Amino acid sequence: MNFFFDPRGVAVVGATPNPLKGGNALIKNLMHGYRGEIYPVNPRYDRINGLACYPSLGAVPDPVDMAIVFVPAPAVPAAVEACAARGIAGVMIESGGFAETGTEGAGLQRKLGEIVAGTGIRIWGPNCMGLVDVVNSRIFSFMDPQSTEQGFLPGSVSLIVQSGMLSASFLIDVMSQALMGISKVCSVGNKVDVNECDLLEYFISDPDTRVIGLYLESFPQGRRFLALCRRCEKPIVVLKGGRSAKGAEAALSHTASLAGNWRIIAGALAQAGVIEARDFKQMIDLCRSLAMAEPLEPLADSRERVAILTFSGGSGIVAADFIDEQGLELADLSEGTRTALRDIFPAWMPVSNPIDLWPAVESHMGDGMDVYSRSLEAVLADPGVDAVFLHTFTGHSRSRLDLAVLARLIREAGKPVFIWQVGRRESAFAFQQEALSLAIPVFSEIGRAAECLAAVLHRRRRHHPSTP
Amino acid sequence: MNFFFDPRGVAVVGATPNPLKGGNALIKNLMHGYRGEIYPVNPRYDRINGLACYPSLGAVPDPVDMAIVFVPAPAVPAAVEACAARGIAGVMIESGGFAETGTEGAGLQRKLGEIVAGTGIRIWGPNCMGLVDVVNSRIFSFMDPQSTEQGFLPGSVSLIVQSGMLSASFLIDVMSQALMGISKVCSVGNKVDVNECDLLEYFISDPDTRVIGLYLESFPQGRRFLALCRRCEKPIVVLKGGRSAKGAEAALSHTASLAGNWRIIAGALAQAGVIEARDFKQMIDLCRSLAMAEPLEPLADSRERVAILTFSGGSGIVAADFIDEQGLELADLSEGTRTALRDIFPAWMPVSNPIDLWPAVESHMGDGMDVYSRSLEAVLADPGVDAVFLHTFTGHSRSRLDLAVLARLIREAGKPVFIWQVGRRESAFAFQQEALSLAIPVFSEIGRAAECLAAVLHRRRRHHPSTP
Repeated sequence: MNFFFDPRGVAVVGATPNPLKGGNALIKNLMHGYRGEIYPVNPRYDRINGLACYPSLGAVPDPVDMAIVFVPAPAVPAAVEACAARGIAGVMIESGGFAETGTEGAGLQRKLGEIVAGTGIRIWGPNCMGLVDVVNSRIFSFMDPQSTEQGFLPGSVSLIVQSGMLSASFLIDVMSQALMGISKVCSVGNKVDVNECDLLEYFISDPDTRVIGLYLESFPQGRRFLALCRRCEKPIVVLKGGRSAKGAEAALSHTASLAGNWRIIAGALAQAGVIEARDFKQMIDLCRSLAMAEPLEPLADSRERVAILTFSGGSGIVAADFIDEQGLELADLSEGTRTALRDIFPAWMPVSNPIDLWPAVESHMGDGMDVYSRSLEAVLADPGVDAVFLHTFTGHSRSRLDLAVLARLIREAGKPVFIWQVGRRESAFAFQQEALSLAIPVFSEIGRAAECLAAVLHRRRRHHPSTP
Repeated sequence: MNFFFDPRGVAVVGATPNPLKGGNALIKNLMHGYRGEIYPVNPRYDRINGLACYPSLGAVPDPVDMAIVFVPAPAVPAAVEACAARGIAGVMIESGGFAETGTEGAGLQRKLGEIVAGTGIRIWGPNCMGLVDVVNSRIFSFMDPQSTEQGFLPGSVSLIVQSGMLSASFLIDVMSQALMGISKVCSVGNKVDVNECDLLEYFISDPDTRVIGLYLESFPQGRRFLALCRRCEKPIVVLKGGRSAKGAEAALSHTASLAGNWRIIAGALAQAGVIEARDFKQMIDLCRSLAMAEPLEPLADSRERVAILTFSGGSGIVAADFIDEQGLELADLSEGTRTALRDIFPAWMPVSNPIDLWPAVESHMGDGMDVYSRSLEAVLADPGVDAVFLHTFTGHSRSRLDLAVLARLIREAGKPVFIWQVGRRESAFAFQQEALSLAIPVFSEIGRAAECLAAVLHRRRRHHPSTP
């Protein structure tokens, strides 16, 4: 599969100088960051976007490991035959018009499989958006070249998606909000050959990938997929489209996928350690939380005890409700922690978890004591606390949370800290950007934060099977 | 209760010129928009923030309907006695240090009740952030005056909250994101006298309020509350803090609330037509959706049929899954709608719901046809469609959704259209702002949008009890 991810030379069949066409976007996107040779193929032009253009695949010089094909569907089989004749190992077909369009297209798609059968040539697609490798700046996709203008955020989450949307527009959304950095995104389309299993296998040994997220509408190789999940040490998050009967019907017309019975599949996936997502942004939230988490120490027992530090009694209570709902526990604070907190709190205030910091912030308004850092330090040092759920309001200077200090405390304690944040839009965004750079997960909903914290803490069970 | 909401004259006991203190914020906030007379009370000053300051409540001239009290807890009973002597009808006590701090504070709080017993004087609080009336620019609260600098968004949702956070910092978050406009927010605190029932009753007949949202930790007058909910024609959304045992314990220390058994309360509330929320932002999402919805026609039967228009097959499928999960139906498109869509779609594409618009957008790229508007028009005219769930990506000019056109179509059809949006942060925000001004609800998560759409559609059942 390396010829797809790190090809020496890429030919583009269907390259065009027309800036409104996908065949031009492909060239622009390749030129954006790919460091190998780019070979536009089109008999009608000598040059495209300043690059030498070749009349046919046969005329393309060595080395060329991959061809991206973006011509109308009826012309695709001939292009694949030419790839085979030229000995190109990887063919990425991004054109649509195959099984997703009816019986005629399905026939064309079958033909592609027949052409490469026994040749060792691999086909990626058709009907897909290809591959985006943010870390290595490789964009093998006809996606809008404007997408890259504001820059992509490199990270350690790789995605495998049966949906063009997730590989382009949604990604722009997630990255422009500084929610998550990305390693690679693979849009698999109709999966005539390369499927989620091939890509999952690749990511299992990819050093740039820490977490793998998948949006899928079918599992054509269910057993192989489960076996891969079982052996994978990296967290895997799966969002399945077509869980309902109506959704499954829609999946059939989208990527010609037979959705299967979701309840059976979901049970098998959960047993293999896969984390199930229900929605796109929630899937991203789970992936980024898992990617930011440091490897955790094995637990002495199966309890997962959370301390809640909040600026608001009300949100502390709602957080406690969600902690309970997620099967986590509210930590009982040790005597040492209680003593430390009593030093910070006003005299009347009993120390209990959730820890409402606001009265302490108010009572130290004059003396400049950093109530947040001191409380966090005490709580993170508590052996009865496995994780901290911290609430903050960005906007007040007088209760500002210093993220750099927090990052140091997290590193020293080796315990995850999840943040629920509210605040004015601009300051909240600046906070989010800084938190991302420090690998501290921030959320705007209490329930989502609790859910993601639970996903991170529950991972310890899986990797320490001796735990009761 | 009108003396709290529309007082002729407000006295502020605990006013101070020190800009770091809440007693100064109260004056600044009153001056921000309140048009009646403001009477700072403090024997140590002649003037505060340019206003004449009075040595005692007795010296304050007429008319004065309300006093806001913000002095240390031990001094509050004397202040309330002075209010009684002066004949001030409404006393809003924003100081903390009462039942939430232990037995001594509880004793003080009881005393307040005893002082006004039989006088007809009403007490709001203590331990609260008071009242913010965005529509009439009345801020009777010590909240940070900077909060108002960027302006508040007037709207038709009124909130009753047992949490200072929700009435200040969270509101800034919601309004700075252009999520929702607000009518009034009441922070009720320890509820020594005025409670959620009094305020709910007020909002039932308040012409500026269309939807009522409540965050509560207890229902001390459960029967009265339920009776009010049953007779209320406006949607009521309740988020209860302390649903879990641990959360209930935390509620006890937050506002000294006995949380009660949530399952029993929840059942009774649902029967009374109340919509239950689980999280703060979700509560806001439910409130804004209900506030934006026009009164709907009674349904011929109990079905609620949704058409999904999307730019992405994958998100259409996931949306179909959520529509199913919410007990809604995917609409079967009429023959007329199918014919209209076939005119727009490429020939190979079968017309089905979810309706994937992307192939049509691509095939009409050159001729400038507005695929979104034409499809929407066809679908909204379909008698078998009760609501539309529309997906859009903001950022592409070539598939831009014209919100003004959409607003006109929605008005003409009298059917709700909910939008799921992804896009680059800045353009997504501009879209959100425009949509809010046109009362079109926009979401960033598919599941949340489906949940809120279901809440709006399910309201028809309640108000048309003859429906099966």
